[in-house]
Amino acid sequence: MSTLDQPSQPSQPSQPSRHPLSWLSQRADERRAAGLRRILVPRAADSPLIDLAGNDYLGLTRHPEVVEGAVEAVRRWGTGSTGSRLVTGTTELHAELEAGLAAHAGMEAGLVFSSGYLANLGVITALAGRGDLIVSDSLNHASLIDAARLSRARVAITPHSDADAVAAALAERSEERALVVVESLFSVDGDTAPLRKLHEACRAHGAVLVVDEAHGFGVAGPEGRGAVFDAGLGGEPDVVVAATLSKALASQGGVILGSAELIAHLVDAARSMIFDTGLAPASAGAALAALRVIERDPGLPELVRKRSWEIYELALALGLEATAPSGAVTSIIMGAPEAAVAARDFCLERGLHVGCFRPPSVPDGKSRLRVTARADLSDLETDLIRSVLSDLADNRPSAAAHRP
Amino acid sequence: MSTLDQPSQPSQPSQPSRHPLSWLSQRADERRAAGLRRILVPRAADSPLIDLAGNDYLGLTRHPEVVEGAVEAVRRWGTGSTGSRLVTGTTELHAELEAGLAAHAGMEAGLVFSSGYLANLGVITALAGRGDLIVSDSLNHASLIDAARLSRARVAITPHSDADAVAAALAERSEERALVVVESLFSVDGDTAPLRKLHEACRAHGAVLVVDEAHGFGVAGPEGRGAVFDAGLGGEPDVVVAATLSKALASQGGVILGSAELIAHLVDAARSMIFDTGLAPASAGAALAALRVIERDPGLPELVRKRSWEIYELALALGLEATAPSGAVTSIIMGAPEAAVAARDFCLERGLHVGCFRPPSVPDGKSRLRVTARADLSDLETDLIRSVLSDLADNRPSAAAHRP
Ligand SMILES: Cc1ncc(COP(=O)(O)O)c(C=O)c1O
Ligand SMILES: Cc1ncc(COP(=O)(O)O)c(C=O)c1O
Repeated sequence: MSTLDQPSQPSQPSQPSRHPLSWLSQRADERRAAGLRRILVPRAADSPLIDLAGNDYLGLTRHPEVVEGAVEAVRRWGTGSTGSRLVTGTTELHAELEAGLAAHAGMEAGLVFSSGYLANLGVITALAGRGDLIVSDSLNHASLIDAARLSRARVAITPHSDADAVAAALAERSEERALVVVESLFSVDGDTAPLRKLHEACRAHGAVLVVDEAHGFGVAGPEGRGAVFDAGLGGEPDVVVAATLSKALASQGGVILGSAELIAHLVDAARSMIFDTGLAPASAGAALAALRVIERDPGLPELVRKRSWEIYELALALGLEATAPSGAVTSIIMGAPEAAVAARDFCLERGLHVGCFRPPSVPDGKSRLRVTARADLSDLETDLIRSVLSDLADNRPSAAAHRP
Repeated sequence: MSTLDQPSQPSQPSQPSRHPLSWLSQRADERRAAGLRRILVPRAADSPLIDLAGNDYLGLTRHPEVVEGAVEAVRRWGTGSTGSRLVTGTTELHAELEAGLAAHAGMEAGLVFSSGYLANLGVITALAGRGDLIVSDSLNHASLIDAARLSRARVAITPHSDADAVAAALAERSEERALVVVESLFSVDGDTAPLRKLHEACRAHGAVLVVDEAHGFGVAGPEGRGAVFDAGLGGEPDVVVAATLSKALASQGGVILGSAELIAHLVDAARSMIFDTGLAPASAGAALAALRVIERDPGLPELVRKRSWEIYELALALGLEATAPSGAVTSIIMGAPEAAVAARDFCLERGLHVGCFRPPSVPDGKSRLRVTARADLSDLETDLIRSVLSDLADNRPSAAAHRP
């Protein structure tokens, strides 16, 4: 075996002495200097922290029935799905889950992927290609951005939630086919997309509306049927819904919901399903059990919205700047990145795990805490949130200036 | 709500009357006419078929300890990981799994993704971008092809397993940085890449070798440590290993293995990890338990290779054309697509579920059965395989011409 300083082919003497991954350490130094290094912090199973940072919106990840749904699926179907959905990776459990998800969202059919990320890649690359147009909201999730890039369609990025800009982009196009791609509830600001207006623009200009309900399914609309259903667009032939099983449904995986014809097309064309191992039975079982819990207890989605609205009103009452939540997420704007990090640590020391977003994830000067409500927050937990946020407001460097 | 024939903005009268997804039915018709439609066939939990089509190479998906590994993880950690690995999605279980996988493969560190597909997208886009070169084997998996496309690097496709062509592509390049991307065991033909020669070419030309061990980890090398380890390349600083947890490890998920510096870089830069929910605890627990089973019973990987070699020799003895397996997969070449489909159905009627590959997945005239061995095939099952393959050989239209 040749070593780094003894190239086996001496014909190119200049190159081999440099380690081909040596740029990584320089990049790491740059990130360190800019305060941008990230690390993984493993959490313990019995962490005493109150989780206001994750996406377990309905608090179902330790719900006894959801846990049993996963356990039973493992015992009945094994730990892996064993192959592509097209070969051995489709069990009756997958089919049942797909039918259940589609029915809940008021759509005709569904196709489950191993993640929401791959569901987005799959549907967008199966519906758009070179010579097509994708109109993409400026705040769209990374998976939607990657999907658009991978599709090789022309991508027009429109200002956040600006239906007029979408209509203009569609009207100006020379391409025949176009997709308009948005999230229903945007995860950082927690706001809802203007779905009806977007759909009108799509109708007027012969485009398909693709809505990512990652943060909407199980949270928005009656019984958590989603923001698309709530807007009266469920089952429209030119509307496609993407959702994830990893947030309100407390599991892993993604799903595309649409017409039976669309789903049949994805089976033929969605590379990220065809060439990927099917979702593990445990995750399919957990998601199905979570769906059954929601169906039986249809007040759960409303409860998380109520909890979240309480946090928002509390923040306002304390003189903090906050975004009005349509779903589970409230942002509390702290301004400078350092202020947001300090506030995050302040909460952490007092038992609250909240998210912290800085540029480039959010605009300059808009660094923030991201506080996720859960439907299962207890009164005790709510009291602690109240007291920590009020201490936080008292201790803000600029707090005196803001309060009466 | 506007309807399909009543556009809300009549300014573009020509377009809206056409359903924007109406092309799907035409596409479906074309596929149907070409015999290329695919359908999902849900399997039952108690299917009597012998599975020679999946990728459960070591037969661990129903192994009691692996099942318990998943069940315990669900009970201890819940059904979902609840967030991105960077926020709440890293548990101590994920960290333990990463350390275990790295140690087994003789690599310094590891990072687990929610699928092998996303692991490949993550590592390649984090290591290569516009202005770089990716040298990609012509038979590489869809996830590697998509990863290269997504990276925006220039892609040079080299003939299958041709290390000289790789060296030439590297030597001719104008780009400073280059990645050479191959699978260790190719899934269709079951052959091994010339890893040492490829590494020599990389060393000589200052490139990084990225090896996808989806079909090698847990199968190739001593104790299933993989083909990279077997080639003496484990731990080399310019070698990166990708693997999946969904095949020999009977679970779901993917992993990148490499230097600690590489892994730290991925934590900062791999979009498909940063913006994706962490692997579900059940799948992490199952993969870790499967790894422990292999460590305790290090003969398992050899057993599947032996079973697979027996199938190959049987096929040859029966006058069938077959590819020599380096791992678990033997291809039995049937020629025309119709012959392959007929042979697949022949096997199915007799209790064997085997894979069937036709163009464009394989070259014209090389349609085939893909027969996957499992380490846990019983003698009874092996007898049935023997008898069905021998009936198949007798019943081939052209069998008479081939046999003595
Ligand atoms: C809007 C949006 N889409 C897609 C995803 C990807 O879903 P998953 O994590 O299940 O892969 C996420 C979050 O991770 C998301 O926030
Ligand atoms: C070579 C190769 N790489 C990557 C993958 C993707 O792995 P996963 O199915 O775990 O996403 C597969 C198979 O699915 C594969 O065969």
